[in-house]
Amino acid sequence: MTALPIIIDCDPGIDDSVGILMALASPELDVLGITVVAGNVELERTLRNTLQVRELSGRREVPVLAGCHRPLVRKQLLGIYSGVKGLGPVTLPEPTTPLDPRHAVPFLVESLTGAARTGAKITLCTMGPLTNVAMALRHAPVVAEGIARIVMMGGAFRQAGNRTMSAEFNILADPHAAEIVLSSGLPIVCASLDASHQAMTTPDRVAAIRTLGGTVAGTVADLLTFWDRKDLKRFGSPGGPLHDPLVIAYLLRPSLFQCDRARVFVQHDSELTMGQTIADWWDKSGEPANVEIIAKVDADGYFALIRERLAAYA
Amino acid sequence: MTALPIIIDCDPGIDDSVGILMALASPELDVLGITVVAGNVELERTLRNTLQVRELSGRREVPVLAGCHRPLVRKQLLGIYSGVKGLGPVTLPEPTTPLDPRHAVPFLVESLTGAARTGAKITLCTMGPLTNVAMALRHAPVVAEGIARIVMMGGAFRQAGNRTMSAEFNILADPHAAEIVLSSGLPIVCASLDASHQAMTTPDRVAAIRTLGGTVAGTVADLLTFWDRKDLKRFGSPGGPLHDPLVIAYLLRPSLFQCDRARVFVQHDSELTMGQTIADWWDKSGEPANVEIIAKVDADGYFALIRERLAAYA
Amino acid sequence: MTALPIIIDCDPGIDDSVGILMALASPELDVLGITVVAGNVELERTLRNTLQVRELSGRREVPVLAGCHRPLVRKQLLGIYSGVKGLGPVTLPEPTTPLDPRHAVPFLVESLTGAARTGAKITLCTMGPLTNVAMALRHAPVVAEGIARIVMMGGAFRQAGNRTMSAEFNILADPHAAEIVLSSGLPIVCASLDASHQAMTTPDRVAAIRTLGGTVAGTVADLLTFWDRKDLKRFGSPGGPLHDPLVIAYLLRPSLFQCDRARVFVQHDSELTMGQTIADWWDKSGEPANVEIIAKVDADGYFALIRERLAAYA
Amino acid sequence: MTALPIIIDCDPGIDDSVGILMALASPELDVLGITVVAGNVELERTLRNTLQVRELSGRREVPVLAGCHRPLVRKQLLGIYSGVKGLGPVTLPEPTTPLDPRHAVPFLVESLTGAARTGAKITLCTMGPLTNVAMALRHAPVVAEGIARIVMMGGAFRQAGNRTMSAEFNILADPHAAEIVLSSGLPIVCASLDASHQAMTTPDRVAAIRTLGGTVAGTVADLLTFWDRKDLKRFGSPGGPLHDPLVIAYLLRPSLFQCDRARVFVQHDSELTMGQTIADWWDKSGEPANVEIIAKVDADGYFALIRERLAAYA
Repeated sequence: MTALPIIIDCDPGIDDSVGILMALASPELDVLGITVVAGNVELERTLRNTLQVRELSGRREVPVLAGCHRPLVRKQLLGIYSGVKGLGPVTLPEPTTPLDPRHAVPFLVESLTGAARTGAKITLCTMGPLTNVAMALRHAPVVAEGIARIVMMGGAFRQAGNRTMSAEFNILADPHAAEIVLSSGLPIVCASLDASHQAMTTPDRVAAIRTLGGTVAGTVADLLTFWDRKDLKRFGSPGGPLHDPLVIAYLLRPSLFQCDRARVFVQHDSELTMGQTIADWWDKSGEPANVEIIAKVDADGYFALIRERLAAYA
Repeated sequence: MTALPIIIDCDPGIDDSVGILMALASPELDVLGITVVAGNVELERTLRNTLQVRELSGRREVPVLAGCHRPLVRKQLLGIYSGVKGLGPVTLPEPTTPLDPRHAVPFLVESLTGAARTGAKITLCTMGPLTNVAMALRHAPVVAEGIARIVMMGGAFRQAGNRTMSAEFNILADPHAAEIVLSSGLPIVCASLDASHQAMTTPDRVAAIRTLGGTVAGTVADLLTFWDRKDLKRFGSPGGPLHDPLVIAYLLRPSLFQCDRARVFVQHDSELTMGQTIADWWDKSGEPANVEIIAKVDADGYFALIRERLAAYA
Repeated sequence: MTALPIIIDCDPGIDDSVGILMALASPELDVLGITVVAGNVELERTLRNTLQVRELSGRREVPVLAGCHRPLVRKQLLGIYSGVKGLGPVTLPEPTTPLDPRHAVPFLVESLTGAARTGAKITLCTMGPLTNVAMALRHAPVVAEGIARIVMMGGAFRQAGNRTMSAEFNILADPHAAEIVLSSGLPIVCASLDASHQAMTTPDRVAAIRTLGGTVAGTVADLLTFWDRKDLKRFGSPGGPLHDPLVIAYLLRPSLFQCDRARVFVQHDSELTMGQTIADWWDKSGEPANVEIIAKVDADGYFALIRERLAAYA
Repeated sequence: MTALPIIIDCDPGIDDSVGILMALASPELDVLGITVVAGNVELERTLRNTLQVRELSGRREVPVLAGCHRPLVRKQLLGIYSGVKGLGPVTLPEPTTPLDPRHAVPFLVESLTGAARTGAKITLCTMGPLTNVAMALRHAPVVAEGIARIVMMGGAFRQAGNRTMSAEFNILADPHAAEIVLSSGLPIVCASLDASHQAMTTPDRVAAIRTLGGTVAGTVADLLTFWDRKDLKRFGSPGGPLHDPLVIAYLLRPSLFQCDRARVFVQHDSELTMGQTIADWWDKSGEPANVEIIAKVDADGYFALIRERLAAYA
């Protein structure tokens, strides 16, 4: 079996880091590059964090590329969900390999244009604001033709928002980019808060990762211990939703997920609900449904898969 | 026990009619008046329908008053959920008693101002667009002081909209009025689509009403037979959601319902989600939660209560 | 010649006061009532100011009625263009006659409904936010049939806003009410900032009023001395634009004004330009032009007319 | 004197063509490239038109590059102000030199990044929707550092819109791109409809161009004859506003123009006034004024300058 060619677009962030580590340990996936965007923290830090995670993985041959430093239209909004450095208090190894000198957007444009030509279409795995991908899509129509599918972490449907009443951070941080991507007509899988709030980092699950042994599993367990939101009232359990690795898990084991299909719109006109994702569940818009929205997650299976992949680093 | 003084504000409509019939058969409630608004159908027809329903109930002493003919700001939108006449193909008795000559808004203003003075506060039961109530609230601050509580049918939270992707009809028809009411700080109970989609008019439930015998039960069964949306795909069952009687049922038997509490905002700026109701579940807005949003309905108990009250007419 | 029946709706305010004094001194106008709204200052103060201005005029038989205490939908915004009391530091006589006990909105509704019946249509002269008039228009369709014309001070077209970049205060304070009025299809004359910025209270003009002698002229001169914005940079001259009396002057001597005709829309969706008035100069909307927008003012003629009328009090 | 390095970004279009011809005939300007965007007509045609205009100019060494095929967020809107082909019925020479193979956005990014490094900053002359320039600005912060100034044709201030009530086409076609450019803080000169409606292609002015003789002047005269809008009612004269060459004329002879300075915002939230440009004339926003808005044009001087430059082709 040929490995699936993917590009990871991310803004690490703790959960991005776990997703990257999973992907880099998965022989089913051929990670062509990791493009980085501002989001959780400013671009300088998401870049450094990505380089450190790559260092931790030992996969120094995978190119890491700097993308956009701010959203398309709105003022910059940083997530700061993982502390001001983006990885909590955990110390990762110093990078020994530099950034790829190319910019993420032309890298996406060239990779996808090439894929359109050869037919070896690429799956985009997005874990942050969609600025880089939107910029690539607007470059020229051929770019979209090189995309097999976009599997994204972002949005909230039946679940409330995590940043505002109705918006999830990745979408709110660049709603115009999200609208560009979600209105592209491309096949999209959406791991929203509806999915991630079913996938909580309970103490048992974190402990099970730590028992794998080794630096990577230990670091991930440390990161997820920091990630523990301790918001019992909101989440109904210790731990917090583990968002970004859902993207990689979906590619590796789709049977863990059940999806509903709908056209998705992004609110980018109204401050009240800026960044809200709206699913057209009952086909009121007349536009074709192109997004598989993850509705149910086998959470135990998800965490078992994470352990399985992290075990490869032991 | 003193009966609870209420005013019903409605736009019948099949489900409004069932709600009115329930209320008028309930000794726990003192229906001070029925104010009518355009909504399901134009005002002329909602008025005629209300008079016919009152005629059917035999409660000719309860005043029926004409309210606003159109929403505050937006172009008029009619529901037409119950046919162009608003009561499907069912024929109700000709009214023998005329409209009260007063307009609904000054009636609300005077009733509520009086209630503010005497302390015998009034519960408003709203089953249509909130134009009349909003107009009364904007008359003067004292009006709000006469309101014990507003129990309203309207909105959609975790459930999708019934008119657009995200909007329920009563709110969409006059989102500015809804914003006035929901931002009033008054205690509000909200029976949204989240509640009514748990309360389906299945054939069994309609048949059980018909077996009560008598004209009223027979007419209600006929109306609900027309109401049957037969939208198996959407509702997962025959029948449709029975919205408006939830308002009366909540007053009569609150133990049938479980609520979540939140501040609710109304989208009135953006066409994409115009009329959406947004609950601030996690207190992101900093504004006090004043709305009890019905989250769970004991549907069998609800239909049993409807039968119980309609039985009084047999 | 029969006097023209008018109702003045206002929020005094210095310039409202001058407009009221002009109207009450004009035999061509039959002032049926003065309805008051919150705007320049809160309702309690605009009411007191109106009663004081009526007292100053000696026309104690003209009813003054309290209207709405806040705008329809938006949070209250006060103008405070004439100090926190609304009349600068000038002391007016204590009122000897009380408020009419009726509320302004039912007064408008009854007056206009009566006028619709008799055909003696009434001209509405509005000098503040349009809340009262909008509430009356939404009461029932017949209300509009009793309106001969609305002559309003409000809006800004080629001129920039006075409160925000693009909004004039009266419209911004209640843009939803303004939209209701301007979309009514009624014949409207609009004295916007385009007009009032051609009509500046220069020191010479104020001095000319003072030389009329008498209490009223002296008080007006005192008020206009406070009104002097001294914003040489903005206005290009000492003094400031004298807005509200334009409404009365237009009725008394239309030859002082040249108008352009257009459909006018009100921005009520976007914070950036909230309250902006947009004229469809070139018929892009396909909706009929119903507003005469004053484009040119004979400013010397305007101030001469003010003096002429105030002279009647001497 | 060193020639001023400029890049022209355009969507020809008759008036773009005249602007390009002026620039290519001006020794004061060093045209580094002509980047093309969809706008007046679709990208394929604006490209072909640009190549034909370059052919007509004989300046085959100036690179022409294809840019973005559609706006960032909104659905594509074509101007079609110059017929479906974009140059009216006029036939221009077939291009003998192909497009530059590079894409306009990386060309802008590289040129401007280089200019930032060397200090030889570049002036951007934009005559169409601002998609290409916005994409370049969002690439990385260094790009802005290579821009000396942006001289743009777009927007409408005291003048009404030409496409909708309040929007000029170039801004309306991509309001998000316009917002990116206008909020960049860069020094900008804006030739809006306020300027171009002072610069009408009267028959005399067109005739004066034709008398220059030669192919270029004849072609321009033919183009401007088609451009004649014949909208006597709107423009008050035969001919129409000659927009885009204002950009070049401003660079060549700024003394022909008087400007007002303001911060400019773009409406991108509300359909009512989508694409409107709002000048903060009185510093209500607190943001620094960075746009010189052309307020007065010496129209005779402008057309004399056009003739002077076209004469170089004779």
